Amino acid sequence: MTSGLEHLRVVLVDARNPLNIGAAARAMSNFGARRLRVVNPYEVAFREARSAMGAAKLLAAAEEYNSVAEAIADCSLVVGTTAGGRRELQHPLRTLSDGARLIRNSVPSCKVALLFGSERFGLSNQDLSHCHWLMTVPTRTEHSSMNLGQAVAVCMYEIARSRKGLPIVDKKPKKRQARAEEVERITTLLLEALRISGYVQPRTTEVAEEKLRRLIRRLQIEQPDAAILQGMLRQINWKLGNLDPQKERKPR
Amino acid sequence: MTSGLEHLRVVLVDARNPLNIGAAARAMSNFGARRLRVVNPYEVAFREARSAMGAAKLLAAAEEYNSVAEAIADCSLVVGTTAGGRRELQHPLRTLSDGARLIRNSVPSCKVALLFGSERFGLSNQDLSHCHWLMTVPTRTEHSSMNLGQAVAVCMYEIARSRKGLPIVDKKPKKRQARAEEVERITTLLLEALRISGYVQPRTTEVAEEKLRRLIRRLQIEQPDAAILQGMLRQINWKLGNLDPQKERKPR
Repeated sequence: MTSGLEHLRVVLVDARNPLNIGAAARAMSNFGARRLRVVNPYEVAFREARSAMGAAKLLAAAEEYNSVAEAIADCSLVVGTTAGGRRELQHPLRTLSDGARLIRNSVPSCKVALLFGSERFGLSNQDLSHCHWLMTVPTRTEHSSMNLGQAVAVCMYEIARSRKGLPIVDKKPKKRQARAEEVERITTLLLEALRISGYVQPRTTEVAEEKLRRLIRRLQIEQPDAAILQGMLRQINWKLGNLDPQKERKPR
Repeated sequence: MTSGLEHLRVVLVDARNPLNIGAAARAMSNFGARRLRVVNPYEVAFREARSAMGAAKLLAAAEEYNSVAEAIADCSLVVGTTAGGRRELQHPLRTLSDGARLIRNSVPSCKVALLFGSERFGLSNQDLSHCHWLMTVPTRTEHSSMNLGQAVAVCMYEIARSRKGLPIVDKKPKKRQARAEEVERITTLLLEALRISGYVQPRTTEVAEEKLRRLIRRLQIEQPDAAILQGMLRQINWKLGNLDPQKERKPR
């Protein structure tokens, strides 16, 4: 499967925690992005991060750079990510959903770099100066700082959104609703059980039947379930039948 | 900011890694969900997880349960999450974007539980039997298994997503769905009737219970009807009880 994200480069700048680098790799792999670049990772041993579960190859193939400039050199569009709260923004700021659409549109024809900053400080002004525009995940103002791995996951999800390359989950066709006659049979069987067990009194049977019919219709029983429910009620009624004074003909 | 997600309960079932529980809490807080529930966490010390950065209070207030049934008892809509790859699905399966819209529409008026399974195994069939439907994040078929904290983050993002421009789903005012504990009571009562009447054999009770639970969920019983159905089944069971060999203590 090609995800259409071959040209996307996820660039982690000054990432501190190797677990987050691994987690970013995993999320990229989940959504079909393959090319990870790291700039000055805090821990050189990030390549073995266990959090990259299922994405060990992608992580092993990560390209390492000493500067943002080098890491984005071959890209035509450079997008920085930022927590919503930052005030000193010099760049156009787009929400993830708008920004992801632009990235999606660009990525088939040109290389796009998506930058994430360090866990503690985000991207520096220096880093941001390489960016064409910035993108932010809309979070609560009071708690806008996301975990790095989670931020990458949310961005990958949104960028990969509705791309044709991604498998479309089969929508389970809605099952056919039971036919009226089956529903009516269930009603009759249940009414019988309620009559025998004394829930419904003979003088109120008619009203009860109407209410019961409406209740059963509200359940919108599907066809296979209707057959099962009939079987259940038949069995219950058969058992109850042994108690029904009208049917009881026990030899004494 | 009120996020409108006050009624959302995120339920982590058998979560193994406390870091993931903390990460889930952080993502919830980022997107405005507040109520975390955990069922049998593998590590009891999860409450101090440092990964909950900025969401320590939310994590400290997490409610702990011994079973899925208890954890979802007060919820009217129960949604399970699953990796796309699973084949044996008995439930309607929705993509995150469709499912999130339904959750968003439900959550202002009723409590919604969103279940996540353990890191290794996901939700069990037993867990799934409590769910009305399932939701999956569309990932690559070859690598569909997401990190738990990242899966929670992506789901929170999509559920919290701005409502603007979203198609309006059905306008018909729906009656409030029965709470999970009421639905579960109906399941238990019907199972009892089926056991006494011989429809369910002792050695197959467990499988029957799962199937029955799913069938009952498919009916999407409304709240007033749930009370009526319970009353009916109690009466039927009371009558059947007189026939139950275990209860029968006839004087001779």
